[in-house]
Amino acid sequence: MINLSIIGSGNVAQHLISAFKKLESDFNEINLIEVCARDSKKLSHLIDAEKICTDIADMVDVDLFIIAVSDEAIAEVSRKIPHNNRLVVHVSGSVPLISLSNKNRKGVFYPVQTFTSTQEINFWDVPICIETETIIDSIILKKIAASLTQLIYELNSSQRKALHVAAVFANNFVNHLYKISADVCEDNSIPFDILFPLIQETSKKIEFMSPEKAQTGPAMRKDLTTIESHLSFLENEHQKELYITLTESILQNGKKL
Amino acid sequence: MINLSIIGSGNVAQHLISAFKKLESDFNEINLIEVCARDSKKLSHLIDAEKICTDIADMVDVDLFIIAVSDEAIAEVSRKIPHNNRLVVHVSGSVPLISLSNKNRKGVFYPVQTFTSTQEINFWDVPICIETETIIDSIILKKIAASLTQLIYELNSSQRKALHVAAVFANNFVNHLYKISADVCEDNSIPFDILFPLIQETSKKIEFMSPEKAQTGPAMRKDLTTIESHLSFLENEHQKELYITLTESILQNGKKL
Repeated sequence: MINLSIIGSGNVAQHLISAFKKLESDFNEINLIEVCARDSKKLSHLIDAEKICTDIADMVDVDLFIIAVSDEAIAEVSRKIPHNNRLVVHVSGSVPLISLSNKNRKGVFYPVQTFTSTQEINFWDVPICIETETIIDSIILKKIAASLTQLIYELNSSQRKALHVAAVFANNFVNHLYKISADVCEDNSIPFDILFPLIQETSKKIEFMSPEKAQTGPAMRKDLTTIESHLSFLENEHQKELYITLTESILQNGKKL
Repeated sequence: MINLSIIGSGNVAQHLISAFKKLESDFNEINLIEVCARDSKKLSHLIDAEKICTDIADMVDVDLFIIAVSDEAIAEVSRKIPHNNRLVVHVSGSVPLISLSNKNRKGVFYPVQTFTSTQEINFWDVPICIETETIIDSIILKKIAASLTQLIYELNSSQRKALHVAAVFANNFVNHLYKISADVCEDNSIPFDILFPLIQETSKKIEFMSPEKAQTGPAMRKDLTTIESHLSFLENEHQKELYITLTESILQNGKKL
């Protein structure tokens, strides 16, 4: 039996609370004992009031503390945990393991997904990347991860940082291109919905074809006539600049300089 | 009953041939009479040899000719069709209707999807954008489109061009970012597969939330510490330049200058 507590009340914390709560009804090898959040109201829809603690100094002793707070607060929160020699993990893609306080055993439990408060996530399909200092702690985190997901990876801090950078390209930057695309549609009275099937197909294609092989479009074809016609069509300098940078990048095949 | 022929043997032509052939077995309101392609071997797996014509001058007379060739060849092909006053359409996102020869009635039949030779597409979910000169021709094209898809839009040439630009952002440029992301993973011995669930979720999110609202990540949070740490992590100048351009664009919210 593993007793764990979560610190935080943001999107990741809330999704983890829901996922661990679902687990409790199935079997009781893993118990969510307590959640620590300064603003208990943010969690009142998710967990009983008596399980919410508003001061980290009052947290009860458990086997595992999961820190799900903003990156810059992780180190300080880890120092404030009022227990020693417990396993303390954070859930961040970009914070190194060594940022955690030395008074406890350190680990990382990073779910690679974009979490929205309004949208339920099936954790079973969310990859979890773990990192620990010892094999024993790795076994503990793998056991917990395996109760939530079928996709478990061990990555060190440097790989996790690389993965986070890769995720910024594939998620944050991609979403921004969707926004630019939606702006172009709106400016020309075209429903953005027309592009949904294309967007879905583009994202599905990479699962059976490398993105390098899947590349199509005017830049890939070196179709300068279309590229020039698109550039003269775009009146917004900002959109034009993005179009040029991305077209040049495709023309150079994202070449490693 | 509408008799139609297709000119071309590329990806779009092949997918249209398959889609119209499937239709024939269901009901016979729409008949694929002939396909014209210089290299008949490219189509031998799709259609009977006697239905393939290798010289456009020999094409039989039908109600509708669908030109599915490269953008730069459309005008010339339309001039070479050996019949007059028929409906002649092209399938391109970026070529204006007026590029077609005056000797026939002009139209556009643009399927908004990315076609790969190896991957079957369910046409029922492919939006088709049509444009014609007359209401009667619009009725004909809508009838044909409705036999293939549930998603039919009427766009004029200027809107279609805008849509094509928007599609370049949402498909070609997005795919290129997947490639950069895959490169970063590969350079750090991380399986790109870890990002598949995140990529799928990102693309699904826009169907119930505007991309503007869905934006997350270091740039959106104005988290300069993470941005700087990512930039110092990226050794490849090319990746770094893309990271900076896209981050600045998010910081400015793709602002219309």
